[in-house]
Amino acid sequence: MPVYQHTLQLPAFPRGFHLITRIIEREFSDLQQIKAGILHVFIQHTSASLAINENADSTVRGDFERYFNKAVPENAPYYQHNYEGSDDMPAHLKAAMLGHSVTIPITDGRLNLGTWQGIYLGEHRDHGGRRTLVVTAWGEK
Amino acid sequence: MPVYQHTLQLPAFPRGFHLITRIIEREFSDLQQIKAGILHVFIQHTSASLAINENADSTVRGDFERYFNKAVPENAPYYQHNYEGSDDMPAHLKAAMLGHSVTIPITDGRLNLGTWQGIYLGEHRDHGGRRTLVVTAWGEK
Amino acid sequence: MPVYQHTLQLPAFPRGFHLITRIIEREFSDLQQIKAGILHVFIQHTSASLAINENADSTVRGDFERYFNKAVPENAPYYQHNYEGSDDMPAHLKAAMLGHSVTIPITDGRLNLGTWQGIYLGEHRDHGGRRTLVVTAWGEK
Repeated sequence: MPVYQHTLQLPAFPRGFHLITRIIEREFSDLQQIKAGILHVFIQHTSASLAINENADSTVRGDFERYFNKAVPENAPYYQHNYEGSDDMPAHLKAAMLGHSVTIPITDGRLNLGTWQGIYLGEHRDHGGRRTLVVTAWGEK
Repeated sequence: MPVYQHTLQLPAFPRGFHLITRIIEREFSDLQQIKAGILHVFIQHTSASLAINENADSTVRGDFERYFNKAVPENAPYYQHNYEGSDDMPAHLKAAMLGHSVTIPITDGRLNLGTWQGIYLGEHRDHGGRRTLVVTAWGEK
Repeated sequence: MPVYQHTLQLPAFPRGFHLITRIIEREFSDLQQIKAGILHVFIQHTSASLAINENADSTVRGDFERYFNKAVPENAPYYQHNYEGSDDMPAHLKAAMLGHSVTIPITDGRLNLGTWQGIYLGEHRDHGGRRTLVVTAWGEK
């Protein structure tokens, strides 16, 4: 059973939620070798996240940003970790709530996502810069 | 190392949280072949979720539904994705917070869950219908 | 492709968030055998969680505890599962939001974490006692 693993650098994205399914499929063509297996995408940061959600209407991604900004406020009076900017501590919390990896079944060389599913990058900093992913796939050829 | 992968259709569940451990164990008997490995359950939707939690007292599942309805309100004034019903955007947010997959160790042909752990389906739509899972297991025989 | 799997008992931690990366690396030296693969850490409880976040400044872990205590209140009037103590139902909810497992790439015998990433144990009970992890790793030697 082969294991494919690569590091992949995303372009810098503005704060908010972004669909990155196409980037991963394009940059990690090894997944086409796998008949039945799993793709694991891991983000090596603590203020950005990976999740799966609706891939069609961009207002969903906008509502994600608006909701999480309400649910995880900036400048909460009880934050002690506040010297890296008001967007920093909320970014850590959002990243933990949403998660640092996604795992997706691979079937016949393709991501076996539902029709309306895509991979979201959650960029939770104002100027997060380029983010690094470690992408691993394994399964039967 | 073998990989087992199947698609599994759940019956339609009402909005709320539901234990589905037994369904998965019954429908995916291949996991009994694995001595040491992992079970991955993935839900192919963006308004239903999978999580692990308490398997004994049904009031826990009720409290989950009540808590998440408070934490992720319907009809928030800032939602722009609101034309699929007031339960739709909250369902996407709840699904992202709880997650689209669970990964559970398999040991000696059985799910190696803690005594009080079960697999929860979070059905976040009023009429979500039948949900599709892709179940994958791998490991040493 | 080998699979390594062990059960590991953590010492009892006080309520709050704790870095456990070193414990896992020390107790699970099998991961050094793996050239490219995945480490899966699973917690067999429903009121404690695993997550990945900032490994440097302990105020981040303090802010996690303060934030989640606000976001998931004790004694909410709608809780029905309240006979195991006021810290019990919030612990179940926090555990579901943060998650019961982490999956981390292994590269050249080491956890391929980002510079600032560590593994957090979220202990959500006042007196949770010792927690049990099932740690599984697989990949190419």
